[in-house]
Amino acid sequence: MPVTAEIPGFHAIVPAGGAGTRLWPLSRSTRPKFLLDLTGAGRSLLQGTVDRLVPLTGADRTLVVTGVAHAPAVAAQLPDLPEQNLLAEPAPRDSAAAICLAAAVVAARDPEAVVGSFAADQVIAEVEAFGVAVGEAVAAARAGFVVTIGIEPTSPSTAFGYIACGDDLGVAGAPHARRVVEFVEKPDAATAASYVAAGTYRWNAGMFIARADVLLGQLAQTRPALHAGLMEIAAAWDTPARQEVLDRVWPGLEKVAIDYAVAEPAAAAGQVAVVPADLGWDDIGDVDSLAGLLPVAESAGVRVLGDAASVLAAECGDGVLVAGSAGRLVAVLGLDDVVVVDTPDALLVTTRARAQQVKGLVDALKASGRTDLT
Amino acid sequence: MPVTAEIPGFHAIVPAGGAGTRLWPLSRSTRPKFLLDLTGAGRSLLQGTVDRLVPLTGADRTLVVTGVAHAPAVAAQLPDLPEQNLLAEPAPRDSAAAICLAAAVVAARDPEAVVGSFAADQVIAEVEAFGVAVGEAVAAARAGFVVTIGIEPTSPSTAFGYIACGDDLGVAGAPHARRVVEFVEKPDAATAASYVAAGTYRWNAGMFIARADVLLGQLAQTRPALHAGLMEIAAAWDTPARQEVLDRVWPGLEKVAIDYAVAEPAAAAGQVAVVPADLGWDDIGDVDSLAGLLPVAESAGVRVLGDAASVLAAECGDGVLVAGSAGRLVAVLGLDDVVVVDTPDALLVTTRARAQQVKGLVDALKASGRTDLT
Repeated sequence: MPVTAEIPGFHAIVPAGGAGTRLWPLSRSTRPKFLLDLTGAGRSLLQGTVDRLVPLTGADRTLVVTGVAHAPAVAAQLPDLPEQNLLAEPAPRDSAAAICLAAAVVAARDPEAVVGSFAADQVIAEVEAFGVAVGEAVAAARAGFVVTIGIEPTSPSTAFGYIACGDDLGVAGAPHARRVVEFVEKPDAATAASYVAAGTYRWNAGMFIARADVLLGQLAQTRPALHAGLMEIAAAWDTPARQEVLDRVWPGLEKVAIDYAVAEPAAAAGQVAVVPADLGWDDIGDVDSLAGLLPVAESAGVRVLGDAASVLAAECGDGVLVAGSAGRLVAVLGLDDVVVVDTPDALLVTTRARAQQVKGLVDALKASGRTDLT
Repeated sequence: MPVTAEIPGFHAIVPAGGAGTRLWPLSRSTRPKFLLDLTGAGRSLLQGTVDRLVPLTGADRTLVVTGVAHAPAVAAQLPDLPEQNLLAEPAPRDSAAAICLAAAVVAARDPEAVVGSFAADQVIAEVEAFGVAVGEAVAAARAGFVVTIGIEPTSPSTAFGYIACGDDLGVAGAPHARRVVEFVEKPDAATAASYVAAGTYRWNAGMFIARADVLLGQLAQTRPALHAGLMEIAAAWDTPARQEVLDRVWPGLEKVAIDYAVAEPAAAAGQVAVVPADLGWDDIGDVDSLAGLLPVAESAGVRVLGDAASVLAAECGDGVLVAGSAGRLVAVLGLDDVVVVDTPDALLVTTRARAQQVKGLVDALKASGRTDLT
């Protein structure tokens, strides 16, 4: 199957949420990670995500679900997104509500739809492999499975959940699909190493592909009230009653992750499949993982996001510098693995090893009332 | 003698030159070290120097010698400095020309004058002890000596020259004055340690006190052409011919340090005395020595020059942060001995141990044509 071929009946859902706190001060509550260009590609993570999906869905079958506060920025970054495909949540209600609302809206428009959910803040280097994997996942979804794409682990990371892969599924059009034995939470280092050594575990990137009716049917079993609320909103979505129903029903919806509401119960019932894939995938959880995506700027001697000409580094092995303020020189001398993130109103200096702890700084800022900077 | 008592016939000369390159990006060629407030005292180093001297000289017997480019900034910082006491050099001609020109101008005004030269970019914590030491130095100068003030070493520093102290001088009014055996250049670490252990060595802070006629007489012996040129300029200084003579004579003057032209030859002839003193003296050669002068800001946990409220540091033992841009937050996490100097157009991140090497960064900037930042 050519990678750019549309997959008939396939609709993509892009939940665009989460601030990406550990990427502060690049990311802010008003400028979340998915709106940022973190790879120097000239496209934000959201734009990159949609760029990957539109060839598979066509222009009008990709939907974005985001908070009402970010809807204008999303619309501005995605001028080709049909207005009715931008779903603005009045308030955050976690991933089950976001994804299943979109699935219900799609189902109302196309009852035979297969939907796939792909977070707005991930990067995938191997676009062709991604297209092939989604194609297999859709084939398995048509057979009634909830399907995830399992990322080939490149390290025994403790930052991701894992998927235990079982037997081959034996579904036509999905030669690599296997049954999911179970989803496992972020493991400790020893467990992660054993998973990688076993060769039968994949990283859980939170991608779920299913027939809309299957997905909603699973939700109806585990969370009937949430399901009923979402169906009521979806029925009104493409009518003048949308806002009235949304305002009335949304605030009462249960906050629950789709993993708990759908994926794990379905896996326990043997109804989840995984398509293993080697995608060059990353969720850029912090500046340390960002480093893995940036080339070493020849002129600067360190990895640079931004204008390498404004960076002067000497004896800074494997550092990461983000030059965020146009024209301002960033000079770094004699610090290995240093991280410098320079933005107009806030500067961060730390090390790659401490990158995960940046969240604590942001918490401290919030606690001290500096929410203008978070 | 009360410290604030004027010393009759004593004139202070303040050479204000040198960029302080190792303090980049705080210091620049257009904003040299002596114009900066590096202690958070609210006064620049130049202002602090003049503040210490005026009680000893009275308002009209302190002179500042600086480059023509910095004269307006010096005048702005020192509104009480008499206009005729600000000597602007058309171009740098090193310290012998600068100091001896001022001495010659003073001698023309007051032939009996004792002059003392004190660099504009040093700090002295013990102002009372400084006044006492200058008083003794002036007494020894009246007896015909060239007198220096020898700083009690607080460490075996290799950054300063040393003074080998000999026998007591036995001059009335200068009970602590001793003869100088020799001036020694910046030593290596082992030699410095032996000097400190010997107890008879003092740091050379470049302070010289002498009768103007003695100083100029020494110069006449060692550098007759330089002496003649300076005397010609000085004779014209307080006349309408000043600029014409200055423009004609100054460019041809020899560039030589006063140490070579006067102090070392005079010491070899047994004509130099030293008044040892414990002054809490520092020349703030780099950010590492700056650290010794700054308190640890309680709110920030690190040493801060600038607004401590704009600094957020966690696990940064003994770091130094200079927050130079109003309102911009500087957050530092997990870096011991880190140095962050934040200015509007340039940021420096390094360690205290590397502080001396900042000069190399500035050289690299110049080489790459970024003189706008140096």
